[in-house]
Amino acid sequence: MSVMQQATSISSSGSGFLGQNTFFNTRYSSSTKELSIKVKTKNSGICKCVAATPPPPPPPNEKQQIAYKTNVSRNGNMAKLQAGYLFPEIARRRAAHMLKYPDANVIRLGIGDTTEPIPEFITSAMAKRAHELSTLEGYSGYGAEQGEKQLRAKIASTYYGGLGIEENDIFVSDGAKCDISRLQLLFGSNVTMAVQDPSYPAYVDSSVIMGQTGQFQTDVEKYGNIEYMRCTPENGFFPDLSKVSRTDVIFFCSPNNPTGSAATREQLTRLVQFAKKNGSIIVYDSAYGMYMTDDNPRSIFEIPGAKEVSMYMMNLFVFLLYFFLNFSILISKGLL
Amino acid sequence: MSVMQQATSISSSGSGFLGQNTFFNTRYSSSTKELSIKVKTKNSGICKCVAATPPPPPPPNEKQQIAYKTNVSRNGNMAKLQAGYLFPEIARRRAAHMLKYPDANVIRLGIGDTTEPIPEFITSAMAKRAHELSTLEGYSGYGAEQGEKQLRAKIASTYYGGLGIEENDIFVSDGAKCDISRLQLLFGSNVTMAVQDPSYPAYVDSSVIMGQTGQFQTDVEKYGNIEYMRCTPENGFFPDLSKVSRTDVIFFCSPNNPTGSAATREQLTRLVQFAKKNGSIIVYDSAYGMYMTDDNPRSIFEIPGAKEVSMYMMNLFVFLLYFFLNFSILISKGLL
Repeated sequence: MSVMQQATSISSSGSGFLGQNTFFNTRYSSSTKELSIKVKTKNSGICKCVAATPPPPPPPNEKQQIAYKTNVSRNGNMAKLQAGYLFPEIARRRAAHMLKYPDANVIRLGIGDTTEPIPEFITSAMAKRAHELSTLEGYSGYGAEQGEKQLRAKIASTYYGGLGIEENDIFVSDGAKCDISRLQLLFGSNVTMAVQDPSYPAYVDSSVIMGQTGQFQTDVEKYGNIEYMRCTPENGFFPDLSKVSRTDVIFFCSPNNPTGSAATREQLTRLVQFAKKNGSIIVYDSAYGMYMTDDNPRSIFEIPGAKEVSMYMMNLFVFLLYFFLNFSILISKGLL
Repeated sequence: MSVMQQATSISSSGSGFLGQNTFFNTRYSSSTKELSIKVKTKNSGICKCVAATPPPPPPPNEKQQIAYKTNVSRNGNMAKLQAGYLFPEIARRRAAHMLKYPDANVIRLGIGDTTEPIPEFITSAMAKRAHELSTLEGYSGYGAEQGEKQLRAKIASTYYGGLGIEENDIFVSDGAKCDISRLQLLFGSNVTMAVQDPSYPAYVDSSVIMGQTGQFQTDVEKYGNIEYMRCTPENGFFPDLSKVSRTDVIFFCSPNNPTGSAATREQLTRLVQFAKKNGSIIVYDSAYGMYMTDDNPRSIFEIPGAKEVSMYMMNLFVFLLYFFLNFSILISKGLL
């Protein structure tokens, strides 16, 4: 089957695209059988794709010359994880496919890596800062733990002017994915969590590792003790909150990955009211907020009352004056 | 008291230097009453230091306008931590001191920040790489999870040539401190751990957060369920292993922070034998290995059998060809 020749059904409950039907299910936090997104492809001559056959599973006992083994046990929650993290697995399968079909032009629907060069005025500033580090005046060692004061003030005024977010509310970290795990560590193992279904896998995986969940249940393809909030075309990709059980933490990504659907002002208002009623914390992931061109809120802090129940993660790939390629802004108002 | 005028006694069991006697004890993982390092200071006119008086404690109930509180509990292990992480606390106290004595030239014995500019040939390479990111040929998105293949091969041959460490054993991460917490997450809450006493605080703090320890016991100034290995002048700063109980993990830093003492080949051989006998894993922190000028091993992998029981962390502040200012090498041989 070539995706050049027909619309391809990509379902979070599995398709031939990734080989094994169970894989996409188990790793993409989805148990939705109905979701089917049609991808229309151009019938041009550029794209030449060939469906992958499932790669052979690794040998059960790889020959390792281990003459000795420690008596240290691993975090038992790790064993609950299914088949490794999604994106390295996709990369492995893609590599195997390319080996077999070297001329294939694979459409990557995986991790969402960037492909375009960075504008020159940004990299020039980065280079300038690099050179400054060789001067007595320009050199600096460790920065402030919460981020440079000047940067935090600028973020507050540029992105959140008028929303009641101040410099002190902002924490600049080294990436949103790291922050997800750190937040889980802050919450500990005794909280319950809800996620959109389908959703970015790091919310669920980090929850599993922290011991917040039960085992993976193969029959329903869900982890125990996680509240999966169905987001399908039928409900406009926004969960029916009347059917969602109360949890401590609600991970909510808008625009969502992988559906691309952005919540409206009215929907987010309902979500905030829901969290407030339940005493929950919303961890709002706005990684794709910069791509929005419509009137939907870019930040949940545009919703009245959201500051009382929400933490906010925003991923900035490049920020002009600073030397990092990828960092994250984390905003909270003392919720715990 | 001025450190200009006399040798100053700095003890990990407390001195006036940090104000409160209990502080250095509780946060620097030390219960050693005897340790006293004499610091000889030059009687020059440059340094003008004034002893700090303890800063006032923060008000018990800072006025916060919180009209609403969530029902989400925090990781209970966080509450076991004493008074916040050591280094931000030192920074806060230093800032308070400088406010009171603006002319003071404080000798910083805290986090060990760097102060000297980076050699120009390194920052030029960093700037070159920045500029390349603006070109179609030079741009790259996410790198390989375990680090670039080429870099890992170079690290293996440059630093571990002849020690049986290969490219595949090496994981390049974004920093040794992050790695400590990630390793703790890998171990989980059911392992026991040993640390040098005194030692870098992140080993203990990360263990506390993961729930591996008991409460902090104020009478002995130790956390329950941690094996503190005394390293004092009396034992040459190397623990008497006949008195150390078996633990799953042994954090071992050489040259150690804060004592500066490096373990000899013979001492490390005993440590490896001790770990092997007990089925323990040594997490070997070699952050200061590059400063060694004597014949002591820079890496524990120089010791026969160490690969079977050791993980290894090495902090590289700058590596020529890559764009990170601070990253870490983590080496393991499939110990779990």
